[in-house]
Amino acid sequence: MTEKEATYELLARVRREKPVVHHLTNWVTIYDCAQIVKSIGGSPVMAHAPEEMADMVRIASALVLNIGTLTADFVEAMKLAAAAANAKGIPVVLDACGAGATPFRDAKTAELLAKVRIDVLKGNASEIARVAGVEVNTKGVDAGQVQGNLKMIAQGLARKCACVVVITGEEDIVTDGRTTYAVANGHELMTAVVGTGCMAASVIGTFAAVERDYALASACALAAYGLAGESAALSASGPASFKQRLFDSFYRLDQNTVFEGVRVSCSR
Amino acid sequence: MTEKEATYELLARVRREKPVVHHLTNWVTIYDCAQIVKSIGGSPVMAHAPEEMADMVRIASALVLNIGTLTADFVEAMKLAAAAANAKGIPVVLDACGAGATPFRDAKTAELLAKVRIDVLKGNASEIARVAGVEVNTKGVDAGQVQGNLKMIAQGLARKCACVVVITGEEDIVTDGRTTYAVANGHELMTAVVGTGCMAASVIGTFAAVERDYALASACALAAYGLAGESAALSASGPASFKQRLFDSFYRLDQNTVFEGVRVSCSR
Amino acid sequence: MTEKEATYELLARVRREKPVVHHLTNWVTIYDCAQIVKSIGGSPVMAHAPEEMADMVRIASALVLNIGTLTADFVEAMKLAAAAANAKGIPVVLDACGAGATPFRDAKTAELLAKVRIDVLKGNASEIARVAGVEVNTKGVDAGQVQGNLKMIAQGLARKCACVVVITGEEDIVTDGRTTYAVANGHELMTAVVGTGCMAASVIGTFAAVERDYALASACALAAYGLAGESAALSASGPASFKQRLFDSFYRLDQNTVFEGVRVSCSR
Repeated sequence: MTEKEATYELLARVRREKPVVHHLTNWVTIYDCAQIVKSIGGSPVMAHAPEEMADMVRIASALVLNIGTLTADFVEAMKLAAAAANAKGIPVVLDACGAGATPFRDAKTAELLAKVRIDVLKGNASEIARVAGVEVNTKGVDAGQVQGNLKMIAQGLARKCACVVVITGEEDIVTDGRTTYAVANGHELMTAVVGTGCMAASVIGTFAAVERDYALASACALAAYGLAGESAALSASGPASFKQRLFDSFYRLDQNTVFEGVRVSCSR
Repeated sequence: MTEKEATYELLARVRREKPVVHHLTNWVTIYDCAQIVKSIGGSPVMAHAPEEMADMVRIASALVLNIGTLTADFVEAMKLAAAAANAKGIPVVLDACGAGATPFRDAKTAELLAKVRIDVLKGNASEIARVAGVEVNTKGVDAGQVQGNLKMIAQGLARKCACVVVITGEEDIVTDGRTTYAVANGHELMTAVVGTGCMAASVIGTFAAVERDYALASACALAAYGLAGESAALSASGPASFKQRLFDSFYRLDQNTVFEGVRVSCSR
Repeated sequence: MTEKEATYELLARVRREKPVVHHLTNWVTIYDCAQIVKSIGGSPVMAHAPEEMADMVRIASALVLNIGTLTADFVEAMKLAAAAANAKGIPVVLDACGAGATPFRDAKTAELLAKVRIDVLKGNASEIARVAGVEVNTKGVDAGQVQGNLKMIAQGLARKCACVVVITGEEDIVTDGRTTYAVANGHELMTAVVGTGCMAASVIGTFAAVERDYALASACALAAYGLAGESAALSASGPASFKQRLFDSFYRLDQNTVFEGVRVSCSR
């Protein structure tokens, strides 16, 4: 099965199985994370009360964590949810949103990686570099300049953490340390919209809910998502019309568009 | 006065009186709840600090509660607000968002129903069935399969709780246990948009702010809201363009559209 | 340099320097505040954990505070952030969202003004009148009726608090107590959209990040923002299509539009 075929196959599976994807995400993009999951056919749940974390995971097929507006309490709830997800064997995606911006974020990211099993660790170049311990010039939640080869940084971190590492950017990198995908889909208007990074993590979680090969699921998720972005850009007049079309395009994404548009390369 | 006439009359009253509708709602759809109230002419307020709950209710004409992203503290603030609303005699709407998903949600819903007077209890089929103690297969916040006659479940619960019960769905059911309305307005694209259920509760609260017959107010609210959805669907390309048009259509909803489009039947 | 020239100059500076604008804002409009900053070229950060407040301010060029959904804890985090911003010498904008609605809000607004240096205090007529101690009939977060001359109220408060005071409305007033600007740009559809006031504070913060004359920065920010609103209204069908076009228009705002459209008058 080629990556194009796999992308469509996973999208079809999401639409058929409608997996529940539980989120503990940030307060800025929480709506968009829920809506992108719903737009591709999944069933989003957002909840963070510690009293219901284990129970909510019980009905979920994937868990997405995002530290964008973290607090100490919120990270505790994340740990409860992730422990339940680990025990159940469903994928846990961590979006290291804003890692590197403050020592608190770095410490909490490290704590999550140490205390629970993260299956997919996702960030932009500077966030992942920071988690990997590479020199980086962070500027808030937007990507900063990174020294070094991104692909090698991702591969090294994937092997160290025994998880899939995803670096989003003009070309997305997805690796489990052995197999590495480069995803060329996407559009620069995505960088003009707040939340496109957070939504990428939600799409990854939704695809990983229906496919145990999390590297393949992540690559296909980003290809489909980027492809929806390319369609959206065709008629957009700016970031807000682009975002509206992104949801609509993803909702309507069909086999032809996927087969003609997916641009993923794989190296082993 | 027919239901069509009542629907337009209540909409006109909302636009004239601009009632303040206080919300303690969830963090996913909080913006949309505020914007739908504003789009129909009301004045939304969202606040949850316990120190100001009673004072905020003092300037409000309705209170809308939603447990979608509940925490124990948040429910305490809800109780303070609802007690003040009960004392003032303004309507309290409870959206049992996600009831049945976890024991914590069920316990907190029961606690709210026991400790304060809820005037309108609203949910989808599986949420209301759960509150009514009927067997149901819940799947997160989306409606699950329910055994039994929904109308009878709603009527029984309305009599038991002495409140109006609203079940949203392809056909909405509104009942106070004696008078029962069936609202046929709406469009299936509403199920593809996160927050349409939460917004329905906000619209109900806004209509109930200007009409003491809460069953009638709820039925008219859902008819007007569903009608805006039907208009929106005419030119939508997917969930996001649909949502944009939903707000715009509701903002512009006129007498002709209401008189020609409202589909409500009433049985006593 | 005329106000038209200054407006374009500051917009160009924002696009060039991409200042990080740190927010502690409300949960209703947090996304829109972030997106408006991004749409004009800035880099928004939203964070409120006390452990990272000082560190986050370290990478920021402006701080925007908004009490719309305040809690006691949240105001404590605001004070930590503002103290760090004061020490660093970057502008602090306070949106007195909902001031006057409850004694708690009034007390917390007064506390912020007493404990940290606020550089720009922004609100609608009733909010600012309330902070100034003028009689006002508040109705939630929407502007109520104010007795007295708004310009004089603003000027008096600006001198008393030694800060820039901004009153948004059909004509915006900006004053540092000596120089006073009247900004005629804007469109009435802005009042039909939840969050346009909060976004105005974010735009002011972004412009103040690149210009030390905060009164000039605020006036130019409101002129550019209002101008984007005027462009948006040309093709809007209601509040939601208007909001989408507002983001898109601001993203594309060019020199010609600014030079032809800015309507700011200045008195000293």
